[in-house]
Amino acid sequence: MNDSWWLQPCKALDAQALEQAQARQQQLTKPAGSLGRLELAAVQLAGLQGRVKPELSQLWIAIFAGDHGVVAEGVSAYPQAVTGQMLLNFVSGGAAISVLARQLGAQLEVVDLGTINPGLDLPGVRHLNLGPGTHNFVNGPAMTRAQGEQALQAGRDSARRALAAGSQLFIGGEMGIGNTTSASAIACALLEIPVADLAGPGTGLDAAGVSHKAQVIERALQLHGAQREDVLQTLFSLGGFEVAALVGAYLACAQEGIAVLVDGFICSVAALVAVRLNPGCRPWLLFGHRGAEPGHRHVLDILGAEPLLELGLRLGEGSGAALAVPLLRLACDLHGQMATFAEAAVADRPA
Amino acid sequence: MNDSWWLQPCKALDAQALEQAQARQQQLTKPAGSLGRLELAAVQLAGLQGRVKPELSQLWIAIFAGDHGVVAEGVSAYPQAVTGQMLLNFVSGGAAISVLARQLGAQLEVVDLGTINPGLDLPGVRHLNLGPGTHNFVNGPAMTRAQGEQALQAGRDSARRALAAGSQLFIGGEMGIGNTTSASAIACALLEIPVADLAGPGTGLDAAGVSHKAQVIERALQLHGAQREDVLQTLFSLGGFEVAALVGAYLACAQEGIAVLVDGFICSVAALVAVRLNPGCRPWLLFGHRGAEPGHRHVLDILGAEPLLELGLRLGEGSGAALAVPLLRLACDLHGQMATFAEAAVADRPA
Repeated sequence: MNDSWWLQPCKALDAQALEQAQARQQQLTKPAGSLGRLELAAVQLAGLQGRVKPELSQLWIAIFAGDHGVVAEGVSAYPQAVTGQMLLNFVSGGAAISVLARQLGAQLEVVDLGTINPGLDLPGVRHLNLGPGTHNFVNGPAMTRAQGEQALQAGRDSARRALAAGSQLFIGGEMGIGNTTSASAIACALLEIPVADLAGPGTGLDAAGVSHKAQVIERALQLHGAQREDVLQTLFSLGGFEVAALVGAYLACAQEGIAVLVDGFICSVAALVAVRLNPGCRPWLLFGHRGAEPGHRHVLDILGAEPLLELGLRLGEGSGAALAVPLLRLACDLHGQMATFAEAAVADRPA
Repeated sequence: MNDSWWLQPCKALDAQALEQAQARQQQLTKPAGSLGRLELAAVQLAGLQGRVKPELSQLWIAIFAGDHGVVAEGVSAYPQAVTGQMLLNFVSGGAAISVLARQLGAQLEVVDLGTINPGLDLPGVRHLNLGPGTHNFVNGPAMTRAQGEQALQAGRDSARRALAAGSQLFIGGEMGIGNTTSASAIACALLEIPVADLAGPGTGLDAAGVSHKAQVIERALQLHGAQREDVLQTLFSLGGFEVAALVGAYLACAQEGIAVLVDGFICSVAALVAVRLNPGCRPWLLFGHRGAEPGHRHVLDILGAEPLLELGLRLGEGSGAALAVPLLRLACDLHGQMATFAEAAVADRPA
């Protein structure tokens, strides 16, 4: 077990680049600290990239999709066929993340880990066929250990393709009708937070729907709760293929040295699993936004994460992280291009 | 008085474009409302621009600068010479707003309304020389009525240049050592909020400095408080030239039909003055960010404004608004380019 790839050490930050970037921030022609969170982001990226002036021109967005057996319990506002239909929309350019990837000049890849339509064969989509969706986790584990490890590896493979393409920032997105139920169940198991605090409307359940969803999660926790000390088994018992792929991608990015921008609730739960499995990955995870799903706030708090945006988003697909990219890019531009007090002959405040 | 230009009606929103944009949002391939505040922004911009698919390629940023006589009371962490030095930094490309304007492809203009150095003659800066800064408003009005009207007109002139350049979004920035003191005094006078709730550290006062600043504002309010019903006179008594120019620019934009993206605390106080003078301008004002200056929250609440960003910024120069521009642009891209459910053959949720 100890030679499992996901437990291997993550890359260390470059302490010298970080320190030099911090010193540079103090010299730029602005009151110290006046660019707030953007100063911290630029300094952190300097430490991650090992260069005093980081940059984020090369952006990789991977969408991981999968279907969920638990949808049989009636936990989603949308029909399950939408997962597959959206795969086509992603590669046809009509989905939100397709528009964002185009505008941001990002490389977009779409990975289908397994939907209810195993015959799906869409040009531009990587179909991995781990199974026709997961099993309904109120009756047993969502996936086998073999499927789970394949999903982790699929995320790692994507991170390695990002590395080969010279990517400086990795965004993982997800698509899977029913996956807020899966993510909520994982978070409840790992955090021992009451289900009522975490279960939310997802893409659009009403109050009765949320209450039913919470009951379904309670049943799943009763079945699988004894394993909650085993993070990996909890992921495989309650997860989706796409959630496991995100975990694998985040850990591989941290090992290979690519900064990650985490998206919304489901991605943040994947980040929580990654951090619990291998805490050294935490500094590599930046957070794009705080979404509308009520459980997101809890998960972010536990992770000590302060996302850049809070716009009431609840779409997924990596869209909230993509929307935060221009802020990180501008943070790098400000950090790299502003004049120092000495260069501009501007008086700094008296000591 | 009734034929003063700033009281003339503001342009009406295009109700048909607004309604069609709202209908379009419901058809895009995402759960309704899942893009949160970005959906509202795109719809509002449709109404303002009178087109179902708004766009924001042409961006105008005007920095208004002026010095403040009240700095003689020791209310700022920085020496007053910085106002003029920063003018050079703006046009030399080394200031934060210079970097942001370049990266955003914005037209940047720098208007010097009057600093303590009237001999300043910088290529690329419009020197208007309304006076060597304002008078110290603890002793009398900050500016004469003639100076105030010139400052309003300077803002209007900038808005008209923006219109002539085909600008689709106007950002006003400000620079003026001491101007959080001026803005706080105006806000206290107009809102009748205790000074202690509004006076803050500005660019970096310590607690003793903030307390002293609050006392200075109290003295000013005792001198000028009787005029608080007269919004324009309050602006001229307590304002800075650059604050008055922002008021003029915002009102002219609303009259000419250019959407405005308001920056931080000082700009929001200018927006408050503009709305009190001519309430019809309110729909034309979008808000970029909630800054670190504690008074900003109060002013935004009174205006019913929900800014896009909250990053702990306290720089001014229009920087916080500029940082929000990519979000508005992406909101327009998503609104204009996403596929509808029908176009993408994706199932909408069952009715």
